[in-house]
Amino acid sequence: MKIGIFDSGVGGLTVLKAVRRRYPRADIVYLGDTARVPYGIRSKSTIVRFTLECAEFLVSKEVDLLIVACNTASAHALDVLRKELSIPVFGVIEPGVKEALRLTKSGNVGVIGTSATIRSGAYQRKLSSAGVRVFTKACPLFVPLVEEGLVEGDITRSVVEHYLSELKGKIDTLILGCTHYPLLKKEIENFLRGVNVVDSSEALALSLSSFVRDEGSSSLELYFTDLSQNLEFMVNFILGKGEGIRLARGVFAT
Amino acid sequence: MKIGIFDSGVGGLTVLKAVRRRYPRADIVYLGDTARVPYGIRSKSTIVRFTLECAEFLVSKEVDLLIVACNTASAHALDVLRKELSIPVFGVIEPGVKEALRLTKSGNVGVIGTSATIRSGAYQRKLSSAGVRVFTKACPLFVPLVEEGLVEGDITRSVVEHYLSELKGKIDTLILGCTHYPLLKKEIENFLRGVNVVDSSEALALSLSSFVRDEGSSSLELYFTDLSQNLEFMVNFILGKGEGIRLARGVFAT
Repeated sequence: MKIGIFDSGVGGLTVLKAVRRRYPRADIVYLGDTARVPYGIRSKSTIVRFTLECAEFLVSKEVDLLIVACNTASAHALDVLRKELSIPVFGVIEPGVKEALRLTKSGNVGVIGTSATIRSGAYQRKLSSAGVRVFTKACPLFVPLVEEGLVEGDITRSVVEHYLSELKGKIDTLILGCTHYPLLKKEIENFLRGVNVVDSSEALALSLSSFVRDEGSSSLELYFTDLSQNLEFMVNFILGKGEGIRLARGVFAT
Repeated sequence: MKIGIFDSGVGGLTVLKAVRRRYPRADIVYLGDTARVPYGIRSKSTIVRFTLECAEFLVSKEVDLLIVACNTASAHALDVLRKELSIPVFGVIEPGVKEALRLTKSGNVGVIGTSATIRSGAYQRKLSSAGVRVFTKACPLFVPLVEEGLVEGDITRSVVEHYLSELKGKIDTLILGCTHYPLLKKEIENFLRGVNVVDSSEALALSLSSFVRDEGSSSLELYFTDLSQNLEFMVNFILGKGEGIRLARGVFAT
């Protein structure tokens, strides 16, 4: 079984880690579009175009199913992908929503993510139609913070407070609607004491159980469209050990 | 006289503003590569390729000279541009260096910028060869802060302190080696009390005086490769009034 995982950058490696933990024998091919990251600040049509190009690359690697491990791309491009591709396609939004619905008691659920994810309304629609009240907040500084390795400390705490103060006391469950955010989970939980914090990566990995056969040679291929300076640091920071990195540039025009 | 100004995003609008103030009658065409911003996290070869594509777009608009209003692109791609283009090409690095050399008394000069700009060594080489001691610091969070509109306040002050503490007391002059940074000038000057803070945009505009004839119809064309959500806010935030924005997508493959 070969699983394709796509993200706009390195954040999707938190999903890879969760999938690997649950299905250790499956083969995994990961593509991070580091030449064009971040997707969260692009227009919808550009996000759809970039996502289709990346999905086609993974299909050419003969993956059996595709995980869109990027909330922005999941919010904007999942329908198009499911129409265009003949393999099953999974996003990170539905599993996070399901887990939040399972956990909430008050029926007041918060969602944080990039500006594009929040603006897309994808989480809001799914949660509202299940009858819960939704509180959202875009947190554009969280990704650059994580990529600076600032996952705890004074600056991180003041940025967490800056964004999350308006949610405090209103919600009992918070969805981390961006694959970088699990790295900030500790500070977020500290600030929102008592709130259930939902990491979509874990929820997604669990939801795949009826589609994934845990068979294969445990191979891991990591492709990136640009070998930026910070890449090796981030790969090691998230996966916790050195992994081979390959350049996928030229596969499509960047 | 038609002046072309290129930046990876919106930061170069600080240069446009300085050029406009000094040469109010000249025609200006601005291109911001918002589909692929930020350049600071890309590899050198990718930065060169992106910059060439953008320069070609501006040349097709028949500009008489080209300003590379992006420190990352100036650091990595200026030599290639000067070889490939038949019009004069100006970067933001040389004028900032000249102004810093004019101002420093202690001979200890600081440079801050994106990781790519600092890593390129472009400022360090020029300053060192003039005999001054150079202290550098990459400040990756400054651009996202500005793009969030956080140009002052507690978070901005703590990030300024985070990056600039190690320069404090060592330098008498600091070059803002990124076109976003002039918007943080007030907090930077507050923290580094008594240090000369060099805004390259002003230095560049002044240095053009023997090349630019202040003639034309004062026209201003703003092109961007992607109309991202935050764009209008940033254009108004920097230029201080509504300007027409056009989409340049399709001009080259993003």
